[in-house]
Amino acid sequence: MGLLGFIKDYVLGFWDYETPKVMIVKNKPLGVIYRGVQFLVLTYFIWYVFIKEKAYQQSETRPESSVHTKMRGTAVQGDRVHDTIEYAHPSEGFDVISTTVRREVTYDQMQQTCAEHFSVASANCTKDSDCTPGEVNFNGNGRRTGRCVPYYDQNFKTCEIQAWCPVEEYAAVREPPLLEAANFTVFIGNTIRFPAFNVTRGNIKVAPNKRKRQKYLSKCHYDEKKEPYCPIFRLGYIADQARENFDELCKTGGVIGVFINWQCNFDVDASDCKPTYSFRLLDTRKDLPTAGYYYRFAKYYSRDGVESRTLIKAYGIRLDIIVHGYAGKFSLIPTIINSVTAMGSIGICSIICDWIMLTFIDKNGVYSEKKFVDARKDAIQPMSTAFTIVSYGSNHSDLSDGVPL
Amino acid sequence: MGLLGFIKDYVLGFWDYETPKVMIVKNKPLGVIYRGVQFLVLTYFIWYVFIKEKAYQQSETRPESSVHTKMRGTAVQGDRVHDTIEYAHPSEGFDVISTTVRREVTYDQMQQTCAEHFSVASANCTKDSDCTPGEVNFNGNGRRTGRCVPYYDQNFKTCEIQAWCPVEEYAAVREPPLLEAANFTVFIGNTIRFPAFNVTRGNIKVAPNKRKRQKYLSKCHYDEKKEPYCPIFRLGYIADQARENFDELCKTGGVIGVFINWQCNFDVDASDCKPTYSFRLLDTRKDLPTAGYYYRFAKYYSRDGVESRTLIKAYGIRLDIIVHGYAGKFSLIPTIINSVTAMGSIGICSIICDWIMLTFIDKNGVYSEKKFVDARKDAIQPMSTAFTIVSYGSNHSDLSDGVPL
Amino acid sequence: MGLLGFIKDYVLGFWDYETPKVMIVKNKPLGVIYRGVQFLVLTYFIWYVFIKEKAYQQSETRPESSVHTKMRGTAVQGDRVHDTIEYAHPSEGFDVISTTVRREVTYDQMQQTCAEHFSVASANCTKDSDCTPGEVNFNGNGRRTGRCVPYYDQNFKTCEIQAWCPVEEYAAVREPPLLEAANFTVFIGNTIRFPAFNVTRGNIKVAPNKRKRQKYLSKCHYDEKKEPYCPIFRLGYIADQARENFDELCKTGGVIGVFINWQCNFDVDASDCKPTYSFRLLDTRKDLPTAGYYYRFAKYYSRDGVESRTLIKAYGIRLDIIVHGYAGKFSLIPTIINSVTAMGSIGICSIICDWIMLTFIDKNGVYSEKKFVDARKDAIQPMSTAFTIVSYGSNHSDLSDGVPL
Repeated sequence: MGLLGFIKDYVLGFWDYETPKVMIVKNKPLGVIYRGVQFLVLTYFIWYVFIKEKAYQQSETRPESSVHTKMRGTAVQGDRVHDTIEYAHPSEGFDVISTTVRREVTYDQMQQTCAEHFSVASANCTKDSDCTPGEVNFNGNGRRTGRCVPYYDQNFKTCEIQAWCPVEEYAAVREPPLLEAANFTVFIGNTIRFPAFNVTRGNIKVAPNKRKRQKYLSKCHYDEKKEPYCPIFRLGYIADQARENFDELCKTGGVIGVFINWQCNFDVDASDCKPTYSFRLLDTRKDLPTAGYYYRFAKYYSRDGVESRTLIKAYGIRLDIIVHGYAGKFSLIPTIINSVTAMGSIGICSIICDWIMLTFIDKNGVYSEKKFVDARKDAIQPMSTAFTIVSYGSNHSDLSDGVPL
Repeated sequence: MGLLGFIKDYVLGFWDYETPKVMIVKNKPLGVIYRGVQFLVLTYFIWYVFIKEKAYQQSETRPESSVHTKMRGTAVQGDRVHDTIEYAHPSEGFDVISTTVRREVTYDQMQQTCAEHFSVASANCTKDSDCTPGEVNFNGNGRRTGRCVPYYDQNFKTCEIQAWCPVEEYAAVREPPLLEAANFTVFIGNTIRFPAFNVTRGNIKVAPNKRKRQKYLSKCHYDEKKEPYCPIFRLGYIADQARENFDELCKTGGVIGVFINWQCNFDVDASDCKPTYSFRLLDTRKDLPTAGYYYRFAKYYSRDGVESRTLIKAYGIRLDIIVHGYAGKFSLIPTIINSVTAMGSIGICSIICDWIMLTFIDKNGVYSEKKFVDARKDAIQPMSTAFTIVSYGSNHSDLSDGVPL
Repeated sequence: MGLLGFIKDYVLGFWDYETPKVMIVKNKPLGVIYRGVQFLVLTYFIWYVFIKEKAYQQSETRPESSVHTKMRGTAVQGDRVHDTIEYAHPSEGFDVISTTVRREVTYDQMQQTCAEHFSVASANCTKDSDCTPGEVNFNGNGRRTGRCVPYYDQNFKTCEIQAWCPVEEYAAVREPPLLEAANFTVFIGNTIRFPAFNVTRGNIKVAPNKRKRQKYLSKCHYDEKKEPYCPIFRLGYIADQARENFDELCKTGGVIGVFINWQCNFDVDASDCKPTYSFRLLDTRKDLPTAGYYYRFAKYYSRDGVESRTLIKAYGIRLDIIVHGYAGKFSLIPTIINSVTAMGSIGICSIICDWIMLTFIDKNGVYSEKKFVDARKDAIQPMSTAFTIVSYGSNHSDLSDGVPL
């Protein structure tokens, strides 16, 4: 069969089917190992890949999420009644909302000169020459004037500074923590959309009519067991779920993550797709001086052209709403790809079993002799002999090439 | 060939090439099925995986995005002119920006006592004993003093409360919706960077010089067809594209998602990579009492040491700028991996065709006889016989092992 | 062997092991190519996939991150001392924080009538009829009254408008840039959690006790080489690292990305997992009229019932804290999957070598004759002949089917 014949064969042979020749080894232990490995691979694919991991589904892990928060509650402090307009920040209601639970207020600060706080480095002095005029100490509150003045109503002296006076460390009024905030509620509305499947879901219970829903929302409080579909959360409940002591939180403030988790299977009814909630203190800096959560802001007033401000150091409970979403739906492409991978992996069994067979079982080389055919030896020596015998009863044009069968 | 010979063979045979023996089946239907399945698999890989999904590319799906927004516009309400400084929140211009479209303003609230709103549970009273002193009703506005007082200028009475007075539900002044806001514009600047490829792109049209660009930006308004590269959007256009009625939105407020979508192919010129925009109401709670978007805030004033506030319930149109980015570029690794997977998948065709052949075509067992060679039977029985005959004309050292060829 | 026999064989043969028959080609060049390709594939998998890409690990790329920022510093401007309460926005300390570095302040704006700025289109006039009453020019500042009035203290006239007067363009007082802001520090606390591994890590140095840590944090400044674990950053250092001129930034403002990058390998000690920082100007619109970063806000005052405001155009340096996290840990599943893929890929070598062999080496068709066995020809012609001979010395029930071996 020359080159021409080869090409002819190739063209003619396009519609031929080629299948590998296979040697059957009737060896029970080997067979058991072979089937055992096959069974493991199949089980892995069917149980883990297809049933547990749902590899037949197209998945969407980055849904579009919109969060809307609103805080509500009234608290009484002394003879003053506070509502959440004073307490909740920012008021716009995005996916981060915080409530002030304790305040240290410095009233009526003005641009003036006053004594620096004694804790600031090199602020203590006895005479004016101890204070460098114009110096701005980084940990201090302002610019030194160069004078040494009595520290407010005390007997010692500190350097005078030009700043918002009086300084916060001296003049701040510590208000008691707002323990009533445990009863504040926060409404967390979350709408999620899976663009790949064009499904939109919300976390608010579907009620038959608007009035019923309004009534439900005006009364319900979220509870994992009793009211899992009410999106209104008591701050005290959130702290409990995050395993934090609310009274403790009120002293230092803290950042709590509210995790909304959507696990949706759109092969079943989309309306079964409901969120679960979990809560955890995000800020783990418990042993740090900067632990907790606080920030400072000021309210500015103008009286007869003179600007004054009220400085507020606000300790807050901040809620970070973090939405995780996952949805899957049957799709042909991943099903095919994973099935192909599964089938391909079964072929791996052969590699393992071949190694076992050739190393441990095939002591006499029987199987290897049979499995491995030497192209040269086999072709030229015994078969050519056999051929001589065989050729009596046959008629091959192939012989003209001098190539044995 | 003993163990020693096997080892010797193995060492000598390291540079041997091993290739599976293949049986050719000249069966037209089977060949057609075989080539058909191969064609399907190849088509799937070439068309879908390589051309459509661009599997030869390395991809980057989580680019770094920076959004900068600015709102602009002037609206007249009665004899008052408002600019966006009053309307846009937050002023800093992050990826969420909102404009107030309607306000309910409660002027001059002070810490006082006043009558509770009649809609609050158990607020209606006829005598003082109907009101529990110190009670703070959760849905109410303050702490009850225990007195029953006339409801403002009405004929009935409600419990007196200590709160920010007067209560919002009674005193709020409803302003008309700001329909002119449809002409407000929002500038949305978006810079995106794909770290894997170190390419940075912006959504603002590249103009030959600064002055031309400034001129362009001062006049252009985004329009999908006419001005696709102008980053300035009319609020009315956004509402239209989101298929919402702007007048309706002005009444209830709403949250609209502005989706900026980057699909970049860096195998071609990176400057061809331009964003597309889409708009959709994110908040689907149309039939809810809390539908729409509003929030409350207050402006605080201090007059002669007495604090007062103006409480504003602001209905707003909030824009959430959501950026999706995807970029791909040729890379050797995924090209190799996917080519290998493609070749491997063609092997799957054999599994299918083998099954068809052995089950449907191979009625007489001709092919299975040929394909499957029993290591024992084939080796010991017929071949050994053949061997006896054959051995006449040959001279094998192999025979010493007693193992037939 | 009939259908019955086939079924019987199949049932009995369940525990048989099947292995492909292999032809050995003793061809040195081909063997070298074969082993070379195998070596390349193995090297790729072992070195790149397993060692470099750590394919034996389960990975987590979307950790939960909580960012907490606080700005600190004092700056003197004229005879006024500013602290960060006036400069930092928003005060709450989320993952975006900005500092005002330059201000253009328009004091005492009130709802009045005044002259429009001359740069507004069609604002210049000589007589009242040049101004359309009620017109609201989009690029203007208010509603035209229809009068033509002198432009403040100048000799020319512009249309009168009803607006917040005086207009910003005319009355704004440009304050000098706050170059001292280079010494402002920003504390960036970042806590990261990998839910898949339940490991939480923070970016603050672990000190033996609270007091030592407090002392450390009160003094340290981040420096890539000297203090890599101090979370307090000088603004000047950040600008340097982002390769920006701070003085330049102070004029135009700018948005700088602070990238916190966690690369964690939990197969080693989790406490080795520490973040690296990088800084880059996010806003690349250098040649744009809107380049830099500024926003406007106002402080509102009420004096004797008349509302006034101070409008502030604030140029700021905004820091966007962007956290990237990646963690890996040994896991059985990906190890198995990738090993299987690696083994499967070695099979690809055969496809390449077969092609080389049959095209370039196998000139006489020796190998192809040997590799490809024609089911029909091989079975019926020569073997049947051989069979005739062979059958003498054997006793096959199979013969009853008339099918040769």
